[in-house]
Amino acid sequence: MITAMATQRLPTAGSVGTVETQFLDLPMPLVLDCGRTLHPVRIAYETYGTLSAARDNVILVCHALSGDAHAAGYAATPPAESTRDGFGADDRDGKSGRGLGWWDGMIGPDKAFDTNRFFVVSTNLLGGCRGTTGPSSMNPATGRAYGSDFPVITVADMVRAERAFLDEIGIRRLAAVAGGSLGGMQALEWAVCYPDHVDTIVVIASTPALQPQGVAWNAIARNAITADPDWQGGHYHGTGRAPTAGMGVARMVGHITYLSASSLGNKFGRRLQFADDIRYTLTDPEFEIENYLRHQADAFVKRFDANTYLYTSRALTYFDLARQYGGGHLVDALRTVRARTLLIAFSSDWLYPPSGSEELAQALRALHKEVELHVIDAPYGHDCFLLEEARQTPMIQRFLAGQPVQE
Amino acid sequence: MITAMATQRLPTAGSVGTVETQFLDLPMPLVLDCGRTLHPVRIAYETYGTLSAARDNVILVCHALSGDAHAAGYAATPPAESTRDGFGADDRDGKSGRGLGWWDGMIGPDKAFDTNRFFVVSTNLLGGCRGTTGPSSMNPATGRAYGSDFPVITVADMVRAERAFLDEIGIRRLAAVAGGSLGGMQALEWAVCYPDHVDTIVVIASTPALQPQGVAWNAIARNAITADPDWQGGHYHGTGRAPTAGMGVARMVGHITYLSASSLGNKFGRRLQFADDIRYTLTDPEFEIENYLRHQADAFVKRFDANTYLYTSRALTYFDLARQYGGGHLVDALRTVRARTLLIAFSSDWLYPPSGSEELAQALRALHKEVELHVIDAPYGHDCFLLEEARQTPMIQRFLAGQPVQE
Repeated sequence: MITAMATQRLPTAGSVGTVETQFLDLPMPLVLDCGRTLHPVRIAYETYGTLSAARDNVILVCHALSGDAHAAGYAATPPAESTRDGFGADDRDGKSGRGLGWWDGMIGPDKAFDTNRFFVVSTNLLGGCRGTTGPSSMNPATGRAYGSDFPVITVADMVRAERAFLDEIGIRRLAAVAGGSLGGMQALEWAVCYPDHVDTIVVIASTPALQPQGVAWNAIARNAITADPDWQGGHYHGTGRAPTAGMGVARMVGHITYLSASSLGNKFGRRLQFADDIRYTLTDPEFEIENYLRHQADAFVKRFDANTYLYTSRALTYFDLARQYGGGHLVDALRTVRARTLLIAFSSDWLYPPSGSEELAQALRALHKEVELHVIDAPYGHDCFLLEEARQTPMIQRFLAGQPVQE
Repeated sequence: MITAMATQRLPTAGSVGTVETQFLDLPMPLVLDCGRTLHPVRIAYETYGTLSAARDNVILVCHALSGDAHAAGYAATPPAESTRDGFGADDRDGKSGRGLGWWDGMIGPDKAFDTNRFFVVSTNLLGGCRGTTGPSSMNPATGRAYGSDFPVITVADMVRAERAFLDEIGIRRLAAVAGGSLGGMQALEWAVCYPDHVDTIVVIASTPALQPQGVAWNAIARNAITADPDWQGGHYHGTGRAPTAGMGVARMVGHITYLSASSLGNKFGRRLQFADDIRYTLTDPEFEIENYLRHQADAFVKRFDANTYLYTSRALTYFDLARQYGGGHLVDALRTVRARTLLIAFSSDWLYPPSGSEELAQALRALHKEVELHVIDAPYGHDCFLLEEARQTPMIQRFLAGQPVQE
């Protein structure tokens, strides 16, 4: 149990300041859905704000596929590659080189998750590659990296790890669990699995189960990685080779699914790299968008572990509240939920379309649960959850204050 | 010049019967957009119906990315793998094992392209891998396959090869040029480049220029191929290895873009391979859709050449009427068009969305050209052009008869 959690240094206006990622080893083995047990388990985490004496102001923030524990502020040790492009979001303000957290626009003094009021906890998810135990961690049975011997995990396993971690730092009850995309899945799983521990959930650009096309995109991305000979059956650690080519293709696929067709059109159009004319090249980038994709892929493979991508992608395709808890019926799966729920979706998000949030809202309403759904009309696709800070902020602030969100 | 072109045997009702692909070598070198010259050039082709004495009943049918000359009837020598799944279309009637042409539902007696009336010519496009000269053909300079030494070609080059081929078989004027997707691009290019040779064009699920998201998907697919070490810089022929893994990923990407999210949902939903439960596997197909994608990829890599995929994909991303012929303005590009134009688009086609056809219609109308646009409300995405035969047929028949298409 820890008590002094204010890790901020050199605060700037509206920022939580400079933050150092911390680490905690869970004392007990983690029993997983697949039946296997994981031990040891280390959790990488950051905290922002001050824990109240009553320990009743805690918000757990859950990250998406390619994120990490560094959600807000400036990294004490800026990484070589930014994590701010966690999805397709640009480094619009040039801050990523200074190690800005992936949800810095939402977490801080007077922000959506207001650190003047709340104590915000952010962990790297189970299976991650940024400090929490995952496939690149050492397998105690072999003394080498787990690689593909790491157990196949689920979103429920991620949430169990978060629960065990919070127990360890002395936090039982959560004022909110919040996240976008896979982060929203974790928030939902929290509300279902730990109904008595969660006051509210904020589920952004998420779904009760990924739609079939999303399942397909994830399968394609995983195939790109496993088809790369350098993946070596998942045991590439220590060989000097890694499936960077396959990871690059996986990232490109992901990237395009995070953006909308119209935002791609507005941003790049069909502009050529060399405006004068085409150059008749088969392999070199010819359109600006081709160059951009290649750059995104190159940056991503430097900072992210391919096996973590595989495990996390698999977990988010498995996630299916109705199958897991409702015998195929979402309403039955949500019956135990006690948390007030805020759902935010984005009109142009075709990977996690608003229909998923609408399905959740409908099921929760049928159960007479407290739920608010807001579909924001915005053009940036799934990435909106990282970009549309200004419009999400008042909704989340009102919701956390117990006020109606809808104007 | 050839005169007797009825190659049908054993006709069945509504079918052109059994057809043998034929081959013709162009007598002259082909001068390409890139400045290089290609020689020799062989064209694989099929014909259906009977050429009129006046030679005024010829329809040229142009295929899309993964098609070939075998557009209708049964192949005299059925291929090991069907080409009917040219896009994502299923082999719904189980006929593909018998070598049914990729547009058999549209070409034949009393069909959209009625072989009782028209003489239909179908060629494998330049750069192809099904009989027409392409990157897997022998480079006379080396005695080995061109591989990536094959010149980078454009849709205009494909059309030039078709023009030279038709000259050689004694056909100057075309009653129609018709095609879907890349085939529609060829039809448009014909109308612009040879305005005095083309009476009508039938442009289905196509565009004056691929939208930026489509450019991105194509770049990703090409990257998947070139990132495969077995691509070997494009010189894999004769090495005993080919980039089948990368081609498989490219095909998966293509496949999902040819279908709509809702058709994927209706067809597969989130059904598991083993209905009882998930199996916690990282690499095996777990959802039916994952298994389907893998099957599609495996079938495709057996029948298609990776370099042809690269060259054809590049050509269709380059295609841009406004850039090529209009100094950036579509209206200026279409000024020379004399052909009556029928445009058909499909509501659920997000790869070649109806907006592309609408843009064409608007530009042609602004020029007071004869154009009809019909957007068919159908759920199958880009694949509609191969599937929605019943609804396209009366439109095309009326259009070719010179009657208004719109009811």
